[in-house]
Amino acid sequence: MNIVHIFSGGLDSTTLLYYLLNEGHKVKTISFFYGQKHNKELECSKNIAKKLNIENKLIDLSALKNVFGKSSLTSEIDVPEGHYNDINMKSTVVPNRNMIFLSIAISYAISSNFDAVSIGVHAGDHAIYPDCRPVFINRMKEVAKVSDYNEIDILTPFLDFKKCEIVKIGLELKVPYEMTWTCYRGEEKPCLKCGACTERLEAFKLNNVKDPLLLI
Amino acid sequence: MNIVHIFSGGLDSTTLLYYLLNEGHKVKTISFFYGQKHNKELECSKNIAKKLNIENKLIDLSALKNVFGKSSLTSEIDVPEGHYNDINMKSTVVPNRNMIFLSIAISYAISSNFDAVSIGVHAGDHAIYPDCRPVFINRMKEVAKVSDYNEIDILTPFLDFKKCEIVKIGLELKVPYEMTWTCYRGEEKPCLKCGACTERLEAFKLNNVKDPLLLI
Repeated sequence: MNIVHIFSGGLDSTTLLYYLLNEGHKVKTISFFYGQKHNKELECSKNIAKKLNIENKLIDLSALKNVFGKSSLTSEIDVPEGHYNDINMKSTVVPNRNMIFLSIAISYAISSNFDAVSIGVHAGDHAIYPDCRPVFINRMKEVAKVSDYNEIDILTPFLDFKKCEIVKIGLELKVPYEMTWTCYRGEEKPCLKCGACTERLEAFKLNNVKDPLLLI
Repeated sequence: MNIVHIFSGGLDSTTLLYYLLNEGHKVKTISFFYGQKHNKELECSKNIAKKLNIENKLIDLSALKNVFGKSSLTSEIDVPEGHYNDINMKSTVVPNRNMIFLSIAISYAISSNFDAVSIGVHAGDHAIYPDCRPVFINRMKEVAKVSDYNEIDILTPFLDFKKCEIVKIGLELKVPYEMTWTCYRGEEKPCLKCGACTERLEAFKLNNVKDPLLLI
């Protein structure tokens, strides 16, 4: 298939990119700057796409900061520490972000005569992010089919996978995890305390592997 | 209800705005610059919102020009002349535009603790615009309900109406049509030849009224 892949430069979307290429698909990638503090991830998506010699289109959605309200990822509010399931992690929600990203990726797929878009949503995200739930993704798949006169598919092969299972696949595919970025704080080194860091640490630990990013 | 209204400054969305206010809803509006040649419409949405003393948030999506491909509304390709149902009118399609607009309006509704978004899609648009079809809109309504933990509604009271019926409602509501803009070319005066002008002319003619915009 010809696929537009939503590519954050993080662990999940990088693994999914390698997974899709390994399956023989033709892939180009799209990344978004939406005012996130951890825009360091966008350097990662650019560098990984360059390494793989595939397109990475960066779209500036910084105007949406005025729409998102008080998400701690895009406003002056501090990024909380703890586990994703903690109640205080709700401040990291960026309202309807996945629908916005999917709608633009679908537009790009239509104008490129591509068949599908892909996104790295997975089981660990569902607790606090409404737009990562299977019910949301499945309804998006239904509307994508009628967004043009040709059907557009939304591919989410990791939807039922835990993060540790994604890392297991990525290790087999030799994903260069030292080139990815996960921490919500976007400082020089990962903070190892925010929800994103906590989940990434756990996922490598469950695979009995040290995160290559921490070895640099 | 508290509603975020997608407001282009054109005939349909202006009539819908007056219709929603007349029904007693609290409304704020959102408009988009996406590289359209007829960005004159954005002056209209600003002025009409000012007249009504309601919010009009303008979002700059000009970066999406690189996603949309060769739509005649956003590229150097000439806007075609003729009726909406003509095959050459397909160049005016901006791929998946309504899903992009709805996704951002829904995000704004969620961050504002609002109940719904509204959009002026109507029966005349379906022939060439896939994202105006009832099947598309109805599936969008389903996914909007699960875009957050509270349901967000998509209101489309004009979905089954012809343009002349919308004008009929607007004339009763005293919509200031001289303040609206429809022509795809965005020159000083309406061209009266593009699909948008042709349909607008017809709608006023069927109501036995001269378009107030042409009397200025």
